[in-house]
Amino acid sequence: MSVTVAVDCMGGDHGPVVTLPAVFAFLRSHADARAIVVGREEVLAPLLTPVAGEFGDRLVLQAATEVVGMDEAPANAMRSKKDSSMRVAVDLVKSGVAAAAVSAGNTGALMAISRFVLKTLPGIDRPAIATVLPSRNGRTYVLDLGANVDCTPEHLLQFGIMGAMLVSAVEHIDRPTVGLLNIGEEAIKGNEVVKQAGELLRTSGLNFTGNVEGDQIYKGAVDVVVCDGFVGNVALKTSEGLAQMLATFLREEFSRNWLTKLMAVVALPALKRFKKRVDHRRYNGASLLGLRGVVVKSHGSADAFAFEQAIARAADAASNRLIERIEERMATMNQEAAA
Amino acid sequence: MSVTVAVDCMGGDHGPVVTLPAVFAFLRSHADARAIVVGREEVLAPLLTPVAGEFGDRLVLQAATEVVGMDEAPANAMRSKKDSSMRVAVDLVKSGVAAAAVSAGNTGALMAISRFVLKTLPGIDRPAIATVLPSRNGRTYVLDLGANVDCTPEHLLQFGIMGAMLVSAVEHIDRPTVGLLNIGEEAIKGNEVVKQAGELLRTSGLNFTGNVEGDQIYKGAVDVVVCDGFVGNVALKTSEGLAQMLATFLREEFSRNWLTKLMAVVALPALKRFKKRVDHRRYNGASLLGLRGVVVKSHGSADAFAFEQAIARAADAASNRLIERIEERMATMNQEAAA
Repeated sequence: MSVTVAVDCMGGDHGPVVTLPAVFAFLRSHADARAIVVGREEVLAPLLTPVAGEFGDRLVLQAATEVVGMDEAPANAMRSKKDSSMRVAVDLVKSGVAAAAVSAGNTGALMAISRFVLKTLPGIDRPAIATVLPSRNGRTYVLDLGANVDCTPEHLLQFGIMGAMLVSAVEHIDRPTVGLLNIGEEAIKGNEVVKQAGELLRTSGLNFTGNVEGDQIYKGAVDVVVCDGFVGNVALKTSEGLAQMLATFLREEFSRNWLTKLMAVVALPALKRFKKRVDHRRYNGASLLGLRGVVVKSHGSADAFAFEQAIARAADAASNRLIERIEERMATMNQEAAA
Repeated sequence: MSVTVAVDCMGGDHGPVVTLPAVFAFLRSHADARAIVVGREEVLAPLLTPVAGEFGDRLVLQAATEVVGMDEAPANAMRSKKDSSMRVAVDLVKSGVAAAAVSAGNTGALMAISRFVLKTLPGIDRPAIATVLPSRNGRTYVLDLGANVDCTPEHLLQFGIMGAMLVSAVEHIDRPTVGLLNIGEEAIKGNEVVKQAGELLRTSGLNFTGNVEGDQIYKGAVDVVVCDGFVGNVALKTSEGLAQMLATFLREEFSRNWLTKLMAVVALPALKRFKKRVDHRRYNGASLLGLRGVVVKSHGSADAFAFEQAIARAADAASNRLIERIEERMATMNQEAAA
């Protein structure tokens, strides 16, 4: 694959000290890929000099004079910062210079800018945010995660289509299974919107398996779990809080006294393997779906390893024709509806 | 305290083999308490004979000829099984013979029966289900957990009041802090219902601290987290799924080969303390709030230890005047609204 990714190098909690090493690592592991690093020239240029020989024209700097703040209002970021690193990265996708954009900046601003610059795909009312989570037997994709708090059944159907196409593109699964997040497996459960969304999904032609409950996200019951942005955000944040609490408790029990510390040393290999297996950094990179271009949002606090995963995820989606897959699927749906 | 708890001994996945030992353990640790065990006489009577001398009139059998099935439709359980163990246990609360009822049966049926028999308290539109979860610095109460999937702002306000009164009764906290589950801490976040609920809670006289995100349930940011039943159910089930997955992974890493098994043996004391600390059985027993009587729902799969916690929780709520506290608070609210 020869794919070009535009990387907003100024976003996130850490900026270039994290984003640049991530870009370098990505280029080293993806020999055909190219990266355009976007941000303030006076900051980035000196940091690129040492690797200029290594990457040659696979690494290009695109200057952008402004930076979107992590707490800045999306509308403000969009209207008054037309030369922000985030905006310029997305512009590069719009103009076709890059196949995908990645940013660890402000989610709301990234969504607003992406939507304004790239526009949504035909038949998609609202873009959604999808992430991947570990499950007992692999991985589960969940969407929406906060872009849309009041959803109609049609929105949830569109999320199902976009999620399925994402999985087919990046996991190479032909007909991914899709489940609807609900409070019971029976079709009569749930609120009105979810019940109607179930009806739409059932006749959508997707590989829809019915309702799934929250625990099935981690059991890996389906490839794609569809929910509105409010519910998805709560599920994700609740998971983060629980995982952090359990990690804290485990650490506390092993550091209680010299004996338990000794136990920790002995058990270290198993504990390390466990930690690696559930390492959230490996799952970094949420996809903004439904746009006319690939945009991936990294966690703001991502380190270089995590940010590299987000770049790789963006490159992977672009080179596996994510946008075209969603477009084709939507066109088929519309033809069937018209017939 | 001298409190009488009516226990549906036929409900749950295991029935009397779990519920009766739990009742015995409860009576042993609560010297003043009394229990009425409800269920099929021919099943329960022989099992009570061995302990008759020990508990005397503190343990009474109340015959009920029918049993509500775990998958039975609530309406059916209510209409056609007037002599079910679940119904008779709740009837005992209604008649004042018992101060609280406990069941591990079908949640929907227990809610329907409790609502029909006991009725809701003045000013409460809908009963809610509240549970307690561990947090980094103590415990967090969350409601609603599935009784109400389409809520108005007024419902969420009532959940806040009921949750705060539950915490003041059983945790002896004078003015428990209340948070509204949302997808951001700013007041402008969330869907319309949540935004309006925030306004109502802010002027309610409760110790309302604003919006909380999902991760703060386990961080222990507030004593009570308010949400609609759909969101609460998803958060709880997602947590269950994640905790089970992590436990499975941890077990797998320690049983990979003879070396890791040896590590597990060495680390066992620390691992055991960890396990005990996050043992979900200690948190068993969800309160059905807003009714004119104390009703506690145990997890269907509860073992005797877990079921005992649910009985103790019911006794504790009743002897600490839970119902009166909610009534008084609602009366104050209505006076203030009228003034």
